[in-house]
Amino acid sequence: MNSFGVVFRISLFGESHGPAIGVVVDGVPPGIAVSPEEFLPDLKRRQSGSKGTTPRQEPDLPEILSGVFNGFTTGAPVTIITRNTNKISSDYDDFKKVPRPGHADFTSSVKYSGFSDMRGSGHFSGRITWGVVAAGVLAKKIVGSASINARLISAGGSENIEKALDEAIASNDTIGGIIECRITTPPQAAGEPFFYSFESAVSHMIFSIPAIKGIEFGAGFAAATMRGSQHNDAFTGRDGKTATNNAGGINGGITNGNEICFRVVVKPTSSTGVDQQTLNFEEGKMTTLKVKGRHDTCIALRMPVIVEAAAAITLADLILIDRGIHGPR
Amino acid sequence: MNSFGVVFRISLFGESHGPAIGVVVDGVPPGIAVSPEEFLPDLKRRQSGSKGTTPRQEPDLPEILSGVFNGFTTGAPVTIITRNTNKISSDYDDFKKVPRPGHADFTSSVKYSGFSDMRGSGHFSGRITWGVVAAGVLAKKIVGSASINARLISAGGSENIEKALDEAIASNDTIGGIIECRITTPPQAAGEPFFYSFESAVSHMIFSIPAIKGIEFGAGFAAATMRGSQHNDAFTGRDGKTATNNAGGINGGITNGNEICFRVVVKPTSSTGVDQQTLNFEEGKMTTLKVKGRHDTCIALRMPVIVEAAAAITLADLILIDRGIHGPR
Amino acid sequence: MNSFGVVFRISLFGESHGPAIGVVVDGVPPGIAVSPEEFLPDLKRRQSGSKGTTPRQEPDLPEILSGVFNGFTTGAPVTIITRNTNKISSDYDDFKKVPRPGHADFTSSVKYSGFSDMRGSGHFSGRITWGVVAAGVLAKKIVGSASINARLISAGGSENIEKALDEAIASNDTIGGIIECRITTPPQAAGEPFFYSFESAVSHMIFSIPAIKGIEFGAGFAAATMRGSQHNDAFTGRDGKTATNNAGGINGGITNGNEICFRVVVKPTSSTGVDQQTLNFEEGKMTTLKVKGRHDTCIALRMPVIVEAAAAITLADLILIDRGIHGPR
Amino acid sequence: MNSFGVVFRISLFGESHGPAIGVVVDGVPPGIAVSPEEFLPDLKRRQSGSKGTTPRQEPDLPEILSGVFNGFTTGAPVTIITRNTNKISSDYDDFKKVPRPGHADFTSSVKYSGFSDMRGSGHFSGRITWGVVAAGVLAKKIVGSASINARLISAGGSENIEKALDEAIASNDTIGGIIECRITTPPQAAGEPFFYSFESAVSHMIFSIPAIKGIEFGAGFAAATMRGSQHNDAFTGRDGKTATNNAGGINGGITNGNEICFRVVVKPTSSTGVDQQTLNFEEGKMTTLKVKGRHDTCIALRMPVIVEAAAAITLADLILIDRGIHGPR
Repeated sequence: MNSFGVVFRISLFGESHGPAIGVVVDGVPPGIAVSPEEFLPDLKRRQSGSKGTTPRQEPDLPEILSGVFNGFTTGAPVTIITRNTNKISSDYDDFKKVPRPGHADFTSSVKYSGFSDMRGSGHFSGRITWGVVAAGVLAKKIVGSASINARLISAGGSENIEKALDEAIASNDTIGGIIECRITTPPQAAGEPFFYSFESAVSHMIFSIPAIKGIEFGAGFAAATMRGSQHNDAFTGRDGKTATNNAGGINGGITNGNEICFRVVVKPTSSTGVDQQTLNFEEGKMTTLKVKGRHDTCIALRMPVIVEAAAAITLADLILIDRGIHGPR
Repeated sequence: MNSFGVVFRISLFGESHGPAIGVVVDGVPPGIAVSPEEFLPDLKRRQSGSKGTTPRQEPDLPEILSGVFNGFTTGAPVTIITRNTNKISSDYDDFKKVPRPGHADFTSSVKYSGFSDMRGSGHFSGRITWGVVAAGVLAKKIVGSASINARLISAGGSENIEKALDEAIASNDTIGGIIECRITTPPQAAGEPFFYSFESAVSHMIFSIPAIKGIEFGAGFAAATMRGSQHNDAFTGRDGKTATNNAGGINGGITNGNEICFRVVVKPTSSTGVDQQTLNFEEGKMTTLKVKGRHDTCIALRMPVIVEAAAAITLADLILIDRGIHGPR
Repeated sequence: MNSFGVVFRISLFGESHGPAIGVVVDGVPPGIAVSPEEFLPDLKRRQSGSKGTTPRQEPDLPEILSGVFNGFTTGAPVTIITRNTNKISSDYDDFKKVPRPGHADFTSSVKYSGFSDMRGSGHFSGRITWGVVAAGVLAKKIVGSASINARLISAGGSENIEKALDEAIASNDTIGGIIECRITTPPQAAGEPFFYSFESAVSHMIFSIPAIKGIEFGAGFAAATMRGSQHNDAFTGRDGKTATNNAGGINGGITNGNEICFRVVVKPTSSTGVDQQTLNFEEGKMTTLKVKGRHDTCIALRMPVIVEAAAAITLADLILIDRGIHGPR
Repeated sequence: MNSFGVVFRISLFGESHGPAIGVVVDGVPPGIAVSPEEFLPDLKRRQSGSKGTTPRQEPDLPEILSGVFNGFTTGAPVTIITRNTNKISSDYDDFKKVPRPGHADFTSSVKYSGFSDMRGSGHFSGRITWGVVAAGVLAKKIVGSASINARLISAGGSENIEKALDEAIASNDTIGGIIECRITTPPQAAGEPFFYSFESAVSHMIFSIPAIKGIEFGAGFAAATMRGSQHNDAFTGRDGKTATNNAGGINGGITNGNEICFRVVVKPTSSTGVDQQTLNFEEGKMTTLKVKGRHDTCIALRMPVIVEAAAAITLADLILIDRGIHGPR
């Protein structure tokens, strides 16, 4: 279950405070030029450091354990890991006593009968997305002409992200945001009918990312207020070009060649600096939870590159499946 | 690719105007009482007939081809089909010349190099969801105490659905809507970490349903405007009960036992009665498309039962996976 | 679980005495010419009628329910069924009381807690292979230049099959046999490393067929008596041609372009006419079981076409996977 | 494709001369006590050192990267790696020029268009089975009362293994062998009908192991010479106990509770010390290949523990699937 994809397939592993985190990528075509350095720009975008992000910083340098030889992918599974170095695990027992609202402390404890590694949220940590970004770097090399770009378009309900951050920091609270991803010059015919529609595949991958609580394609939820005559995208060119793009580049679950567009919502960081009244499970009484340490005011700031990676991974899989069944286009 | 699920697994087949449509359901526990009659209420909810739905009506009676013996599931795959009877296929060639905006005519033609069955949208027809509803009836018998209910909460941007329908009918146009699904008394621990989170699994299944363009869990997109201190759901009981439910019953991708809540947006029916200016691909010139026949003003009216089925199928799979790995709870 | 394949994927359903049996084939490339008549020769080869096979005969005409339009595959799942017509189910209760040695009566009853359909062995019947043969007809159209031929090379330990049959019929007993499958002018590069090696994929599919208890590739078990210097196949041509073919056309799990060769053993038909001493589970006492009706003296006679189909289905999947990852060759 | 299993699922990675090799194991139940030391006995059995095995020795100590915390599995994926230390890669270019008969040099080069890592056979090396053995240690903890034991029952066609080894060493040649695996006190009901029969699952896993060219269950190929009245295993107890065990503990692909027994054939080590006449692909002329370095005279000596691991991994998956669908037994 901890894998995604049919032909281009990734498996994630690791916990926030364990020895290492990483990813295995299977179905990588041979002969793709790749060096450890090429992972750095995207991995750096995922890192913290700017205003609104946590000061915990790890170099997170990638080590390629398999699947690359002499600077090229070999066709064998590519494994990339990074060591966890900057870890402070003192808060572990507290999470059992007082599971943090918004986190997986309670659910992971129930699911794994108390055996889950709760240090820093363990396998449920956003840190595990490091492997998604690393796999995304490979995937972006497979999706051909498609250019994938995601950006934070609002935070805390405000398009003035700077201002929203300042206000949240001032109140010691956290905010969420909306990330928009656009794939320009995408291939046509990506997406399989019914159960592996483009939207099914992307959303499956996207909701794996912690903190995402919604996704919409093209006009999305606004479609509920439109008439069919407005929402339909009229064709204007034999290449499938449309006058409008309310469908977000997808008809019947299959890409039509117009720009692909989707948006995701990221909830406010659960680790807020504001005091929270919640249950002490040990004592069976309500208590005031003060989250220790420093955290991201707005985790969404670090997530566009993860969303891009998720889109690239999905698109790579859909392209390879389509090429398998249909042959080259 | 045309399958969904890991242990409780469904495969759909059929085209709108082909001989039959149906579903194969694998991983069904043995000994579940089931009769053809039990499928009728949900299948009936999916049917048309009321205001705002197409007058094309088919009895759509289910025939169980396998997996049920003496009124009980046997453990072998359950196959259920229905024959397509009320089909008029004259419009086929037109779709090739003038692909209908909003439909899969263009993309399916590209994807399958002109070999797709376009009659009534073929395999891309909403009619294929018949099998989802049929499988959902079985799934609902597996999800134990969980009660799954979906309803249309708005249409055409209006909570007054009756009024919105009247207006759309008057203008010969179509509208979309928003469907909310609530799962009360759900099990805890449903959902696997990362790639088969509850949200990943449900959204994968949900976006298989034609016309759905967005999904949100709990507070959903509204979370983008909230502070962490507002959005977090404080625990109030050792059973995981929370004071609020902005998470929609899911933390870290795993159900926490509170009511599960998600909403999906259905786009306006693509087959609008309003004239559309779009390309005649044969002539390479723009033309006026008049959609023939009668169609659903608001296809969303017929879809709550499909959304319920999708939720039930997903939950059944997650429950069986969890029981496999963890044992009974 | 009741599916096989990654990209070219088949799902089987049905029971020996249920309404129908069939197969869903997903991942079929569009544009393949196919008619119901083309299934008849292979389906006929699977039928009984000749010496050593059961006189139960069913026309078993295929009905294509989906995925074919105007004589060509559409890219949507292909579903093919046949109705069960010639069924006599009186022996059902007996199987519960006195599970037949060699059959799945006992294990299916344990596995499904008594709910399995035991009539004619239900889902465990060799009859379910009808769908394998039907899918094989499609698969053979996908494997390009590869020509797949299987034949019975011995029966009852004798290469004189006619004589072995006569002796077995005379003693009212049953015999097994060995089937050899050769794939001439196969493609190179079919097979994925490690877990989806050519041998892994073929054997997974082959052992799905009831009554098969062993498989060997190339020199097979005889390799245990050979020296490395004998067993190694020296290369003689840059196209990979080898002087000998002890590897059966496969190195490292990947086809090398030489003829692929494997053999399977079919156990003697379990339903022998000879009296058997076995347990009456109801009474807890040993009893004499006399199998009623007439059965195949040597079921292996009918199985070469099933083995061919299994090989074709596997090869088709491996070819499509390879084309997806690597591109056309 | 480089994964095996449905619920208990393993993914392998690494090359013989790359930085590290390893395995990711998903679907591991939480709360299983495990320490790095527990892996050593089985890993040691896989190592070389005794007569007939290569003198290349690596400590191969396991490092657990994820999924274990405080001495117990957490429910998250378990990742185990070991570094490659004792590697000499000078022979790489030679393998391109003169692909070694019996090895994957030629096929991997074709499959990956010359980009495969050929050093020490790369991803096709038997060394990759280290991860299978490591995963097997975990799997053995899941299979309950089942005791899995494999041993080499013949080598070079001789039951006198010592003598066969001496003769092969004397002639500077290599030999293969037959390994028998027995699972005593196995669970009943393991195996899914048709495509995930016990034999299908085991053989899929087994043929992933390099050098195995055949498998047979119970009486196996000898069944071809038996009569049905001989081969059938009469029941003698209500627990499913049978008088004989020609079926190897499996009826209809499902375990019946009797001892499970299967045998596999291991081909002679391809790297023989005897001179081989084979093609120099660069020059297009036949040449005399002298294999450098020292190799295993009989690789089968090291493989019983790998076969055990393969059996344990498969059985674990089948048990978890059965528990998921059926509930506890």
